[in-house]
Amino acid sequence: MFEFEIAAEAGAARAGTLALPHGTVRTPAFMPVGTQGTVRALSPLDLRAVGTQMLLANTYHLHVRPGEDVVATLGGLHRFMGWDGPILTDSGGFQIFSLQGFRRVDDDGVVFQSHVDGSRRRLTPETAMDVQWTLGPDVAMALDHVVAGPADTTTATDALARTTRWLKRCRDRHAALSAEHPGRQALWPILQGGTDPALRAEAVACTLDLGSWSGLAVGGLAVGEPRPAMYATLDALAARLPRILPRYLMGVGFPEDLLEAVARGMDLFDCVAPTRNGRNGQAYTPDGPVNIRNAAHRTDPRPLDETCDCETCRTYSRGYLRHLFVAGELLGLRLLSLHNVRFLIRLGEDARRRVLDGTFAGWRREWLARYTARSAA
Amino acid sequence: MFEFEIAAEAGAARAGTLALPHGTVRTPAFMPVGTQGTVRALSPLDLRAVGTQMLLANTYHLHVRPGEDVVATLGGLHRFMGWDGPILTDSGGFQIFSLQGFRRVDDDGVVFQSHVDGSRRRLTPETAMDVQWTLGPDVAMALDHVVAGPADTTTATDALARTTRWLKRCRDRHAALSAEHPGRQALWPILQGGTDPALRAEAVACTLDLGSWSGLAVGGLAVGEPRPAMYATLDALAARLPRILPRYLMGVGFPEDLLEAVARGMDLFDCVAPTRNGRNGQAYTPDGPVNIRNAAHRTDPRPLDETCDCETCRTYSRGYLRHLFVAGELLGLRLLSLHNVRFLIRLGEDARRRVLDGTFAGWRREWLARYTARSAA
Repeated sequence: MFEFEIAAEAGAARAGTLALPHGTVRTPAFMPVGTQGTVRALSPLDLRAVGTQMLLANTYHLHVRPGEDVVATLGGLHRFMGWDGPILTDSGGFQIFSLQGFRRVDDDGVVFQSHVDGSRRRLTPETAMDVQWTLGPDVAMALDHVVAGPADTTTATDALARTTRWLKRCRDRHAALSAEHPGRQALWPILQGGTDPALRAEAVACTLDLGSWSGLAVGGLAVGEPRPAMYATLDALAARLPRILPRYLMGVGFPEDLLEAVARGMDLFDCVAPTRNGRNGQAYTPDGPVNIRNAAHRTDPRPLDETCDCETCRTYSRGYLRHLFVAGELLGLRLLSLHNVRFLIRLGEDARRRVLDGTFAGWRREWLARYTARSAA
Repeated sequence: MFEFEIAAEAGAARAGTLALPHGTVRTPAFMPVGTQGTVRALSPLDLRAVGTQMLLANTYHLHVRPGEDVVATLGGLHRFMGWDGPILTDSGGFQIFSLQGFRRVDDDGVVFQSHVDGSRRRLTPETAMDVQWTLGPDVAMALDHVVAGPADTTTATDALARTTRWLKRCRDRHAALSAEHPGRQALWPILQGGTDPALRAEAVACTLDLGSWSGLAVGGLAVGEPRPAMYATLDALAARLPRILPRYLMGVGFPEDLLEAVARGMDLFDCVAPTRNGRNGQAYTPDGPVNIRNAAHRTDPRPLDETCDCETCRTYSRGYLRHLFVAGELLGLRLLSLHNVRFLIRLGEDARRRVLDGTFAGWRREWLARYTARSAA
């Protein structure tokens, strides 16, 4: 269980398979985000239909509402949300440090204010493990100290040191929880360090010192830094990370970022952008994103994306989709979310196929040139 | 085309089949309402999955947005909304007289204000036919003068007389439009007259005088009158309406009203209640409606309705559905809408089966006793 096998490589890019308790994931793979135990506007059947292999859910949100005990009473996260494939939960660190409201960090953990009812809650490395163990995903994430935005070296160094100390406690607690069910859940650490090469190198070294992990997550990117800085950080990380572990780049992303990250050796991705942007009327196409509310689509009989095999593109015209958005109809939110998720999943599938058949480099170049041509024009 | 065959009767109730250009409808049947060319929160695949045979769409709404010409350019209403089964459009009369905003009626027609952009529009019997012909449903409805709420006899009599004069003009225009495509679209008249037996009798006589119709609609009920008055009106109508025509009771409805109306010889129904109530968290069950937001459902592992075969009831616990509503998740709106539509469609299917096998009367009694027991308790 939790083995990762690499079937082919193309430069730093890899085509892998990851064995998890609820199924095998072929990588590169995009994981749709079910923040509150549901991917907004989509059902599990929709997600299966567009090739979703693995979902993400949020420990913070589920802890605050409905509470992990309610989820456990209702059969655990898989049964709760009606998804029988692999699930990964993040630890809550990112949410606690990015949502509005009170928070206080000390070495023991973090006290924060629930965004639902304003109540004060405490999350420690140990309780982060307990909550995720109770929820029951295939992969749990370690609690990290996320620094919001660009930070000075002292702050970033302190946060990294705290993340490392917390990782040790997460590891110990998770080992204790797993003792009787060793194949039930993996714990993956999160590498922080921003875009500072020295901090990133230290994060890798400290993290690898602390355990024999089955996967690693890269946090602290795609948080507003310039794209070249993100890509350079990934290049540097790819050279330092153990080849045989799956690499999960948190919070990515936009289609072009996902493909650039695949080229730099990342395997798993998550982001709310495809569903959030879809609800706002933005649809991904091979020629870049389009805004479906635009009057140009009013009588356009073409699908959003003529190359796409999703229900939205197989069934509906741009003119109808525009009508749904202009008329404020719920179906529009769902149909664009569905297409955007399919777009990213297909990007992972295509990248994998190109790595396997040896055409990745040229395909990537052409794909990015087409996707970005309009915005560059 | 447009033939109605009655396979069995049980008292006034009937099990029929209605042949329409886009398919055959087995009655009694509930038609979900796709006001703006989409049944709110549901896709055509969802609707098929719960046994929907025929949809309703709204001439008024589609005329003001996106406009019938846009729908025609995008392939007509069926292709526009991705539904290849039968569709009925109402004429716009009900919307024009029930929505807020300016309106002025004269014998030529009605001038009203668009709720979308405030523009003044004119709808006449002729343009009501033109718009519906352009949209392309299987069944178009005649333009009627709907009187809002309880009306004095003079007002009701005037409105009925105008509806009759307009019906003649609808008939003539529709005949001209249909001349070259006689099997493409049926025109059905709408019987008005409130709960006044004399006016209803007059409406039936005048309407039957004006043509050889393939179906009749009963309007002006389920608009706030006491239930006994509605049922008495249906009893009186059932005795006067030609047995061989399908009868469409507009705006019904609530489950108990639908079944009572089936028992009084009605065959087709439409109502926004299952989707609107579903979006508000109300779910139909054999024991009456439940509010899924209620704290009693918090850890309830049972489905909404243990007798139901819909995706919602096959997949999700009440506890999860409650979580979706409490957390404000879009999937909840869809899952309860889906179940409520299935509930009404199944009620039609069950009624049909009971009429066919001769057990309708006893089943109806038991069904209503169970459905209403809790509210009576």
